[in-house]
Amino acid sequence: MLTTALHFSHTLLKEIVQVGDTVVDATMGNGHDTALLAELVGRTGQVYAFDVQEQAVQATKHRLHELHLLGQTTLLQQGHETLGQVIPDTTDIRAAVFNLGYLPKSDKHIITKPDTTKKALEALLPRLRPKGRIILVVYYGHEGGADELSLVNDYCQQLPQEAYNVLTYQFINQRNQPPILFCIEKKP
Amino acid sequence: MLTTALHFSHTLLKEIVQVGDTVVDATMGNGHDTALLAELVGRTGQVYAFDVQEQAVQATKHRLHELHLLGQTTLLQQGHETLGQVIPDTTDIRAAVFNLGYLPKSDKHIITKPDTTKKALEALLPRLRPKGRIILVVYYGHEGGADELSLVNDYCQQLPQEAYNVLTYQFINQRNQPPILFCIEKKP
Repeated sequence: MLTTALHFSHTLLKEIVQVGDTVVDATMGNGHDTALLAELVGRTGQVYAFDVQEQAVQATKHRLHELHLLGQTTLLQQGHETLGQVIPDTTDIRAAVFNLGYLPKSDKHIITKPDTTKKALEALLPRLRPKGRIILVVYYGHEGGADELSLVNDYCQQLPQEAYNVLTYQFINQRNQPPILFCIEKKP
Repeated sequence: MLTTALHFSHTLLKEIVQVGDTVVDATMGNGHDTALLAELVGRTGQVYAFDVQEQAVQATKHRLHELHLLGQTTLLQQGHETLGQVIPDTTDIRAAVFNLGYLPKSDKHIITKPDTTKKALEALLPRLRPKGRIILVVYYGHEGGADELSLVNDYCQQLPQEAYNVLTYQFINQRNQPPILFCIEKKP
């Protein structure tokens, strides 16, 4: 079967993230991506993970502890728009992942907002290594979702082709609005 | 580096095509896809390959002969809209591939046309095996290209989600209009 956008986001991360890398999970959620990234970077790497919700941070902490992956992670209960203040601008980032929308099985009123996404992207791009990737999985079925999708799409489309490749991966005949994947890759 | 639409089309074919399968190259062109498919289906399989241009058929024949792959192919110098007359309607097809636009390094006035694409798709869909895939790589930078792209997009978008998944894979920040990949997959 054709792989979902979520699963394809993991493939795109696994293709490039190496032991010792610094990477970012911009939206911790239930910690699935944080755990995947922590496994890929190993004990010598570092995962910075962000989420505004205490519930998300606790769930992620619990998951990482169970998997013995807590050592290589920095869990921050704050929005990803603070990324530029947390991560030194001399740090090379191999990859970052965003799941935009709301935390599954959680309060649908707490959603990611277009302007925080843009701020986080602007802090990430200069820190991204050549061949590094930023992956955004955009859920847009909820109220405000269309605005966020349109911001991400516009932001990605205007990135200069001399410096970046931007890919989209999406299912186009589904009524239930499955997420759309965007992948920004910095050119070598 | 992120894989091109053309390269991704080969990945999607390799994932499903097996020895002994019947498959279709709807646009022979220089025979690259025909050769790939002939290798995947092996001596017990069958590749039906179509092209209106003699130059394409000759180039493909030459390529397949060199690679000892001619035995498992049927090369037809006729448009893919005749597919329904050539392939029995009891034949199960595992995969089909279209490169829509013009034959690279060839006469740019000879282009594929939206109505032949639609006819070919209508003959293919009922013959497609469950989990089978139709892949369309659409070049649209030439005159008439936008019409063809819009037909393919509309046709794919209206396919019922109960029966098919339709994926698109495209680079969105490039000025030179790289091709867009569509993949129609029949549900099990």
